[in-house]
Amino acid sequence: MLKKVLSLAVIFSSLTISTAFAEVAEETAYILNSFLFLVSGFLVMLMALGFCLLESGLVTSKSVSAIAAKNIGLYSIAGLMFWVVGYNLAYDMGASGLIGSFTTWSDAYTAETASVSDGYAATSDWFFQMVFCATTVSIVSGTLAERIKIWPFFLFAAILTGFIYPIVMGWEWGAGWLDQLGFSDFAGSTLVHATGGAAALAGAIVLGPRYGRFDNGKLVPFASSSIPLATAGTFILWFGWFGFNGGSQLAMGSFDDINQIGAIYVNTNLAAAAGVMTCAGVTRLLRGKTDVVMMLNGALGGLVAITAEPLAPSPALAILIGAAGGAIVIIGTEILNSLKIDDVVGAIPVHMFAGIFGTIVVPLSNSDATFSIQLLGTLSIVVFVFVVSFIVWKIMSMTMGIRLSDEAQKEGTDIVETGVIAYSIRD
Amino acid sequence: MLKKVLSLAVIFSSLTISTAFAEVAEETAYILNSFLFLVSGFLVMLMALGFCLLESGLVTSKSVSAIAAKNIGLYSIAGLMFWVVGYNLAYDMGASGLIGSFTTWSDAYTAETASVSDGYAATSDWFFQMVFCATTVSIVSGTLAERIKIWPFFLFAAILTGFIYPIVMGWEWGAGWLDQLGFSDFAGSTLVHATGGAAALAGAIVLGPRYGRFDNGKLVPFASSSIPLATAGTFILWFGWFGFNGGSQLAMGSFDDINQIGAIYVNTNLAAAAGVMTCAGVTRLLRGKTDVVMMLNGALGGLVAITAEPLAPSPALAILIGAAGGAIVIIGTEILNSLKIDDVVGAIPVHMFAGIFGTIVVPLSNSDATFSIQLLGTLSIVVFVFVVSFIVWKIMSMTMGIRLSDEAQKEGTDIVETGVIAYSIRD
Amino acid sequence: MLKKVLSLAVIFSSLTISTAFAEVAEETAYILNSFLFLVSGFLVMLMALGFCLLESGLVTSKSVSAIAAKNIGLYSIAGLMFWVVGYNLAYDMGASGLIGSFTTWSDAYTAETASVSDGYAATSDWFFQMVFCATTVSIVSGTLAERIKIWPFFLFAAILTGFIYPIVMGWEWGAGWLDQLGFSDFAGSTLVHATGGAAALAGAIVLGPRYGRFDNGKLVPFASSSIPLATAGTFILWFGWFGFNGGSQLAMGSFDDINQIGAIYVNTNLAAAAGVMTCAGVTRLLRGKTDVVMMLNGALGGLVAITAEPLAPSPALAILIGAAGGAIVIIGTEILNSLKIDDVVGAIPVHMFAGIFGTIVVPLSNSDATFSIQLLGTLSIVVFVFVVSFIVWKIMSMTMGIRLSDEAQKEGTDIVETGVIAYSIRD
Repeated sequence: MLKKVLSLAVIFSSLTISTAFAEVAEETAYILNSFLFLVSGFLVMLMALGFCLLESGLVTSKSVSAIAAKNIGLYSIAGLMFWVVGYNLAYDMGASGLIGSFTTWSDAYTAETASVSDGYAATSDWFFQMVFCATTVSIVSGTLAERIKIWPFFLFAAILTGFIYPIVMGWEWGAGWLDQLGFSDFAGSTLVHATGGAAALAGAIVLGPRYGRFDNGKLVPFASSSIPLATAGTFILWFGWFGFNGGSQLAMGSFDDINQIGAIYVNTNLAAAAGVMTCAGVTRLLRGKTDVVMMLNGALGGLVAITAEPLAPSPALAILIGAAGGAIVIIGTEILNSLKIDDVVGAIPVHMFAGIFGTIVVPLSNSDATFSIQLLGTLSIVVFVFVVSFIVWKIMSMTMGIRLSDEAQKEGTDIVETGVIAYSIRD
Repeated sequence: MLKKVLSLAVIFSSLTISTAFAEVAEETAYILNSFLFLVSGFLVMLMALGFCLLESGLVTSKSVSAIAAKNIGLYSIAGLMFWVVGYNLAYDMGASGLIGSFTTWSDAYTAETASVSDGYAATSDWFFQMVFCATTVSIVSGTLAERIKIWPFFLFAAILTGFIYPIVMGWEWGAGWLDQLGFSDFAGSTLVHATGGAAALAGAIVLGPRYGRFDNGKLVPFASSSIPLATAGTFILWFGWFGFNGGSQLAMGSFDDINQIGAIYVNTNLAAAAGVMTCAGVTRLLRGKTDVVMMLNGALGGLVAITAEPLAPSPALAILIGAAGGAIVIIGTEILNSLKIDDVVGAIPVHMFAGIFGTIVVPLSNSDATFSIQLLGTLSIVVFVFVVSFIVWKIMSMTMGIRLSDEAQKEGTDIVETGVIAYSIRD
Repeated sequence: MLKKVLSLAVIFSSLTISTAFAEVAEETAYILNSFLFLVSGFLVMLMALGFCLLESGLVTSKSVSAIAAKNIGLYSIAGLMFWVVGYNLAYDMGASGLIGSFTTWSDAYTAETASVSDGYAATSDWFFQMVFCATTVSIVSGTLAERIKIWPFFLFAAILTGFIYPIVMGWEWGAGWLDQLGFSDFAGSTLVHATGGAAALAGAIVLGPRYGRFDNGKLVPFASSSIPLATAGTFILWFGWFGFNGGSQLAMGSFDDINQIGAIYVNTNLAAAAGVMTCAGVTRLLRGKTDVVMMLNGALGGLVAITAEPLAPSPALAILIGAAGGAIVIIGTEILNSLKIDDVVGAIPVHMFAGIFGTIVVPLSNSDATFSIQLLGTLSIVVFVFVVSFIVWKIMSMTMGIRLSDEAQKEGTDIVETGVIAYSIRD
């Protein structure tokens, strides 16, 4: 009998071991979660280059050096401001659920008090959130190209990445009032993309169109400097979007998490593909030419639209959402043109219009979300960002001035602002 | 005595624990395997940009916008078609070993019935296989540049990625008849690269050379639009190839797997390096100039050649295989020129010729493979793909028409097809 | 009583299991460590493209094809030479601590005798170290552009990557005499960057400035071929630097390791951002224009400066170090110009000057390092590399010749050396 009991004890403990052994160790999960942030973060970091190339390719060749300066500058400013105040403004949220603390992020205390039970390295989370912050202002840059002065743009970039974006980010991802209401925006169709788009729209209205862009109300076509660079930018953005949406799962240390990240990759890719082919087909049918620039923006429209909920939709629904995102870009571009709003790269239709759409249709696949709350959340964010940005742009416009003179625009942003011609190519 | 037995029981269970503790938990392995697919997949996804830039850089400057449209379109089509029918046609293989099922891929059932014992997330596998599928048609695009119409190309892309490639893929990777015979093609020198090359060759023959390319049988040099973009494309392809070959290990959840992935990275890099320097040396010695375009294609020739077996060779053998891949590109280009087949970027020598070579020499290092079966498998795939593609191109040529008129070619694909000039650069 | 003892046995073994279960299994750590090398390695591999694009963009448009050839060639040569002799020369260190063995690296023996207790796959380590080796010679390429002959450059690349760099690398990372003294250079501010810069400086002196660069001692401005390509190169370098510094943690299999990798990502990014904005502000204030090329080099200066110690500094100190790196680039460029040393892309200020600075200030945050040893180590490496490189360049100059004639330079490196014009763009 003793032997039997002993055997049972051994078997029982072995069974416990086998069960335990099949699961992820807590420290391993911590590493995998943090590594997901770092890998996804470096993918999203490269989106700063994607936006830079897209913008460089689509503007005229006399504004490309200034755009390079703006884009490497804005990414730098975003990183610095998100450290100075942005992160804690979003995440160090008080009971009000409205705004966090005006303090500088420090990993010093976390590093000393860090514990495996935190689930991930605080530094990896900061890095991942920071590149999202930078994305917001990349969007603004494209709309305002070719007539905005560099340093006023840098000042706005600091305000957007240090204050405006972190505040709305905290409302949802900092467990603020929108999160408490049940608003759902998985990777930021509204929080990141419509925020960037609304800030860009406010800027475009205050700034006015480029010199000569509208002649008696008719749009004058401006030649894009380099379609291959714009295409490279789009592919790089698509590439980075796997980090953007996949990383927003926020964890990779379990069976469920990795399954869901896989599904996010699939849906993200299908939505972008549908956006591309929708724009290709529509422009070919309506205008006789396959509009390559519209295809690029169609990819981005599809990506933005799926970003609010890349996990729950079936592949078929992801394709429909992406196709709608592409269609919205075509229609939105027409609307802006008819309103004589000069959006150089089409960032407002892509990021704001498709972003709003994507956020509102989340309840189609995610039963935790409701249309009313989605509408409320989206409107709150877009209106807040638009109004605050408008005021900031207006004040800057009336004080330091934000617009290059017509003469400067004729000469080109590159010579006036950077003193360096972008292309010096002899063949 | 009782105490002794008890102690033994405790010691025994502790031993079991220690052993268990040294190994990877099953769920951890599942996560690592899936993550290998996702990371490798996003690397291979970027190869679509690599091909796009290589092609954009090597064509004349009046065909670059159309190439951008073709490349972002083909990647999108591949994703959609591989979902609609491709994946299941390859992997849902019947007893015949010849062809899978004509059904749409769905992860719905797998997500619900998924189990850690599957070894990896079904979605991560779909993503990884999809980017391979896209690679096949990227290859075709380069050969046919500057005279093919966009939409007939898109139709062929849909047929290749939805049907032709999935069928041959299933023969080997879907456990079909070639796999049962013992054919070996680790990451697809033949399955992906020679397939793309054979479809391109069929297209090039049906389509004919570009207007003015051969004058009384003599090759007329056409100026490449941008060598730096072509170079960027090649580096990006090389970068993506670590995912292409490394990810084809299909697992990362064990000591053996990660050791083998490391060896694959080393051999892949050495083969490419050898391809580059072979082409640099040979062109310098034979022609007096160091032919940079040949160096780029030499890298790709080396990469394609090592792809059939990147694991088993010693570093020295990997270098020899890569060098041979580079040499084959030089010779193959001459052969095509003498046959007056116009392969704009040299995709047929790179992907078909070097791919066949790489597959046939697998038995040099892998004793599980035999030359006869390698030859049989390679021939079966190349002949099947060439014949089916030829028929498809021929039917399309006789019905909708696939070739731009000489006038359209003189005006340039960009204006005729996309309405957008690729470069508008003033300096 | 028996039952009690048995229960205790079960409880005890269960406790052991729970504790064990919370930690990373040894095999899992092995996989994660190796995967860190592979992921970081492919990021650093892409830096070869970053350098290529930066250089292509900054030179005049008649030297871009030759630069493409040089850059894909040098990356290939580095891989081959590091296999032939470099790795073992660095790592197979004898008791002297001065030099390793002149033998070819082989993973054959490690693959057979590999053990989980090694901590990582030997192949993954080789790959990671190899891309560092390639970085060294990428740096040299930029300085000497537009007047060096391709094949003498390739010969120097082979000597640098096969012998000079591996020797100094072994002094520190091969547990050689500098490591034994307590010298500290985390990811290679001096070992990689100042080494590349010193070899470049020696070459620039022997080679002399480009034809027409200095007119009666005054600098003649040469137009950069493409600012957007140079910007893309910089962003890609920044992207790759997460692998460069993060991977130099050398392990990811524990709570501490991943926390430290996260901190490295944060500091690396902040230092680069500070470098950018320092150069933007200083050039705007002093010269009235926001110098975009200086912003690009400012990013690199900040990155190089933080590379010697990206872990220990607080974010605030990382920002200061990066800002100083940017300032050093501005001052260093002036110094070189006043000395009439023609450094085409500014690689010497960026990599040598900022690298020396970064290495010397390590003791500010790392109490294991002392200023005297840092100074000794930095000087030893820089002087050794400069002297040996100078001798090699001088011998090559006097025998085979390394400089293109003035006529060849007027015609352009591209036509003379590669026979291919870089850009053929009509708009």
